[in-house]
Amino acid sequence: MSAGTWSEFELIARLTAGLPSREEVVVGIGDDCAVLDTGGPRLLLLTCDSQVEGVHFTLHTSSPQEVGRKALAINLSDIAAMGGEPRYALISLHIPRRCPLEVLEGLYTGLRQEAAAAQTLIIGGNVSGTGAAETLAIDITLLGESERGRVLTRAGARVGDTIFVTGYPGDSAAGLHSLLYPDHPYPPTACERLRAVHRVPRPRLAEGRLLSQLGPQIVTALIDVSDGLSGDLGHICERSGVGASIEVARLPLSAELQALAATLGRDPLAWALHGGEDYELLFTVAPGYEETVQARFAAAGAAPITPIGQITEAASGLRLRWPDGREEPLSVQSWDHFTTPGQARST
Amino acid sequence: MSAGTWSEFELIARLTAGLPSREEVVVGIGDDCAVLDTGGPRLLLLTCDSQVEGVHFTLHTSSPQEVGRKALAINLSDIAAMGGEPRYALISLHIPRRCPLEVLEGLYTGLRQEAAAAQTLIIGGNVSGTGAAETLAIDITLLGESERGRVLTRAGARVGDTIFVTGYPGDSAAGLHSLLYPDHPYPPTACERLRAVHRVPRPRLAEGRLLSQLGPQIVTALIDVSDGLSGDLGHICERSGVGASIEVARLPLSAELQALAATLGRDPLAWALHGGEDYELLFTVAPGYEETVQARFAAAGAAPITPIGQITEAASGLRLRWPDGREEPLSVQSWDHFTTPGQARST
Repeated sequence: MSAGTWSEFELIARLTAGLPSREEVVVGIGDDCAVLDTGGPRLLLLTCDSQVEGVHFTLHTSSPQEVGRKALAINLSDIAAMGGEPRYALISLHIPRRCPLEVLEGLYTGLRQEAAAAQTLIIGGNVSGTGAAETLAIDITLLGESERGRVLTRAGARVGDTIFVTGYPGDSAAGLHSLLYPDHPYPPTACERLRAVHRVPRPRLAEGRLLSQLGPQIVTALIDVSDGLSGDLGHICERSGVGASIEVARLPLSAELQALAATLGRDPLAWALHGGEDYELLFTVAPGYEETVQARFAAAGAAPITPIGQITEAASGLRLRWPDGREEPLSVQSWDHFTTPGQARST
Repeated sequence: MSAGTWSEFELIARLTAGLPSREEVVVGIGDDCAVLDTGGPRLLLLTCDSQVEGVHFTLHTSSPQEVGRKALAINLSDIAAMGGEPRYALISLHIPRRCPLEVLEGLYTGLRQEAAAAQTLIIGGNVSGTGAAETLAIDITLLGESERGRVLTRAGARVGDTIFVTGYPGDSAAGLHSLLYPDHPYPPTACERLRAVHRVPRPRLAEGRLLSQLGPQIVTALIDVSDGLSGDLGHICERSGVGASIEVARLPLSAELQALAATLGRDPLAWALHGGEDYELLFTVAPGYEETVQARFAAAGAAPITPIGQITEAASGLRLRWPDGREEPLSVQSWDHFTTPGQARST
């Protein structure tokens, strides 16, 4: 049995089963961040995530600066996904001997830019060689903070809650498609925007803070869309013990995504439902508070949000509802970086 | 210009030059840990360090369990090197597809053992594939705590201070030598102990706490010996703006190190002075407090400590003093994992 026969989530669950905890660990393994109460004025949020050359990025399709920005952005997104504020970063680089210094300097330029934009300090790190491997990798650990009673997790969704998503899921996956298959005559403007979304996602920090301020009585569950909307909705359902129904007609599809899909003769829905790396926020709102949340986002000039479905009984599982009222099971086809790159996984 | 032409320290200095900081960052980049004052009852210590297959370990010379223990132990040692208490760990694994599940389970068994021994909780992490690379890597971020005013850094050594070291430096490097060149008829008992020290170093957590309790007025500087005694003494001197003189006759050489060196016809001093990965503590004590420190260690049943020299003026640099009174410059020949594995670096 080798590692590659397991999904990332199965492997983590197996390796970390039964690990001890303590009272001060408010949220442990299994959410976007761990949450600690160390007795200070605010709770601590901790997350780590990697970007590995040939798995998560290539230097053919992204500049070193874009790779640096994205490496930090995906960690910032995990802080956003708990409603927290990012504060400090540790940067661990695995650097092949032949890696040009300019690549590392570009990478750090991107890290600095992204850190400055998020008022996050780089306070430490490590560099290591890679031996025989020629693969550049970046591991980032991020510390954030949040107020007591304001941390939002994956675990609080209840039957009847409305499911919302920020922005336009699927854009990143469509951008990646155009990078992997560059020879097609894509519509240039749409293509450039989708590629930019893929190369440097914008972590939804301000939106996460808005949701945190609304609090867990109103915003019952929150996650960022890194594995794909279906996969991340599945995480909420699993942790909350519920099911979910998505209304196809409500899924927000960007004009650029639709334009790209049209030139390829593809269904844009597949990207919106299953494409990974959007780093949009997916959240659930208690019944009766939908307009409150929408008004708050509008007043703050935050990202657009769209209600896309309802939380249902666990027994219903994940379902898609078509405009004609027809329903069908929604299968999770997450992008799993741990299995073969480029190969979607059905579970 | 490629990364491999730079040392780890030169590269970090270049990439992180001029990074912004804030008031709550008590210690930033350049010590064993970053230290944060987040307003809680204790200061937070943060460190991260990697173990990469073929660079820091091989599965031919260490079991997966030993690799797991060491990966956490070297991070625990960084907490010890500030006088802190370890609390929480994040584990990031880079896993080749073909890596057997038993290797990962062995690794995690080692991580669990070492975490339990240090009362440290594993609260999160990440797993990632490695693409085309066949190299297993483990990145660990460790959070610790310490009392305000009790954090010990590399920066406080003053002229006239006495330099101490715990345990027996050189043992790990001698153990590594016997693993890299296994065909020599080594004395079996000595060889086994030295190899065990190399495979699973014991972080000097209790000793770090003792030094922290004595406080920075008595214990003026502290570091752990990861790069080799000469290299890490060099770090203290650089950060403190001082020089140092080591008395050759006082260097504590273990019986096993001497036995191994004798069968090889080698000088055990080179290992003691320049061998890396000892994870002993190297510290400086203000004049007049040497006996206080020794008595405290003896009373606590802590590791043996040995005074090995004096802090001098910066202009003197690092020097070795022989029993006949002769002095010579001590050149730093650190083990630098970032340059070619197995090749010592002279600076």
